[in-house]
Amino acid sequence: MATENLSERVSRGEAAAVARAISKIEDGSSGAAALMKEIYQRSRGALVIGITGAPGAGKSSLVDKLALFYRQAGERVGIVAVDPSSPFSGGAILGDRIRMQALGLDDGVFIRSMATRGNLGGLARATVDAVAILDAAGYAKIIVETVGVGQDEVEVVKAADVSVVVLVPGMGDDIQAIKAGIMEIGDIFVINKADKEGLYATEKELESLLSLASRGDGWDPPIVKTVATENQGVADLARAIESFCQAQLGARVSSERRLAIARWRIVELLRESLLSRVLATDASVAMLNRLADEVATRRRDPYSAVEEIIQAAER
Amino acid sequence: MATENLSERVSRGEAAAVARAISKIEDGSSGAAALMKEIYQRSRGALVIGITGAPGAGKSSLVDKLALFYRQAGERVGIVAVDPSSPFSGGAILGDRIRMQALGLDDGVFIRSMATRGNLGGLARATVDAVAILDAAGYAKIIVETVGVGQDEVEVVKAADVSVVVLVPGMGDDIQAIKAGIMEIGDIFVINKADKEGLYATEKELESLLSLASRGDGWDPPIVKTVATENQGVADLARAIESFCQAQLGARVSSERRLAIARWRIVELLRESLLSRVLATDASVAMLNRLADEVATRRRDPYSAVEEIIQAAER
Repeated sequence: MATENLSERVSRGEAAAVARAISKIEDGSSGAAALMKEIYQRSRGALVIGITGAPGAGKSSLVDKLALFYRQAGERVGIVAVDPSSPFSGGAILGDRIRMQALGLDDGVFIRSMATRGNLGGLARATVDAVAILDAAGYAKIIVETVGVGQDEVEVVKAADVSVVVLVPGMGDDIQAIKAGIMEIGDIFVINKADKEGLYATEKELESLLSLASRGDGWDPPIVKTVATENQGVADLARAIESFCQAQLGARVSSERRLAIARWRIVELLRESLLSRVLATDASVAMLNRLADEVATRRRDPYSAVEEIIQAAER
Repeated sequence: MATENLSERVSRGEAAAVARAISKIEDGSSGAAALMKEIYQRSRGALVIGITGAPGAGKSSLVDKLALFYRQAGERVGIVAVDPSSPFSGGAILGDRIRMQALGLDDGVFIRSMATRGNLGGLARATVDAVAILDAAGYAKIIVETVGVGQDEVEVVKAADVSVVVLVPGMGDDIQAIKAGIMEIGDIFVINKADKEGLYATEKELESLLSLASRGDGWDPPIVKTVATENQGVADLARAIESFCQAQLGARVSSERRLAIARWRIVELLRESLLSRVLATDASVAMLNRLADEVATRRRDPYSAVEEIIQAAER
């Protein structure tokens, strides 16, 4: 009953209900699956924009300015910042607090940081569920921001309708390292801090990398130059996003992409569900702890430990 | 039989056997579990050094120079570079090829890049297994290099005996973002490219961050300044690593850390095993594909899709 009420309140766009729903799926609490089944029935087809880039590329500023742009066009905007526990990612709490000052008093904007949930994993799944909740709540544009390094983070960006990769000038030494992966992930490239030295070189190198790629969908990823802190180029980015979405409408590649995303989402969720089921009882957790001790002291290898857990679960 | 021979050949230190064994565990082929059980019995207790840092911090140069340092001391060195599919990570193949020129003709050094294995995951598990294989093969120092952003990558570094975080001068704007996580992960901090502008400010900021941390093991993480390309400070880093290992010998915190690592390894492997078992048959893969299509076209939500797969597996 409480769950029914919660999903109803989410679909009425109540911010407090959205926050509670996201916490519920982040905790992996028992009602989460039931809630999400209802949430998915209430999906409205928001545009999901993934924005990724190395630390220091100015992603947060760019995301905030893009959100303001959509707000000025009268749209409600959701922002999900993925914050893996890492020395190089921004701090979730600090980040939220700073942002609240600029955007948070506007109730047409909902900002949420998603943090790592410890060694049971599930950050990518929780992020995708948070997006579904924001969609059900009527946020028409949902921006997912990640530090674009790491398997989970890349998957999250791939799961967006459009993926934006943010670079900065002066990546000269490193642009060699920006190899094949970038072609796959970026629908649109932004060179932010475009007033800094090295713009021309970075742009040329990026162009030559892009010219080597063949995407198979006829889309030619544009390079948009921005100075997010000065609000320069943000409208250009919004236009590029719009163009990409128009180009993808009904395209064959686009439906293949949706299929790959759906498959990935099921597999992620399946992986998590199977693990929770096996580790659901106190006895199984005790067994895990005993085996961990044996592995730590080299009396046993992890593979035979896993076999023992699976055999016990099957009994 | 083939597996027995392979683990024997690994333990004799044959590079070709090591390469084949790593490929086997990377592919997740059927003999992988049997192989790894034998490999773990042959472990020799190598020192595993995790090195992480943002793109452009010069990790690869530092790793190469540290490897050369150990080689000159007569030790065999294994290098495992974790390469998640990402626009910001170095290219596995290109990277290997360049490195081969400097180190690869030396048969006391084994270099391997581990790449993302698609949406069945397992990069972290495969990396840890690769380290175990190198250990069994008698590489006394094993260096695991990752771009330190992302859940899996951080876990891999945590699983090392000693974790080194590499920074560069001039991270001023971003050092605010280097928050709590860094305290947890770094046993030793390196400021590489220490001949660049901004060294003093970065060092001061790092010191003040470190002064706020309490590790609970009495270890005070040192800051080592290096210019890897000029081979400066590499011996200092090796000394800091040695000091940390001495300090950890028999420490209570150290055994808690080993326990946490063992637990994480079992959980990772369990997660992967459970998924492989459920998706082992052609029928289950066909079911996954059908459900993915239904989810992609919004006829179904991922949660009920997962329930259907689990129910089918239990029948």
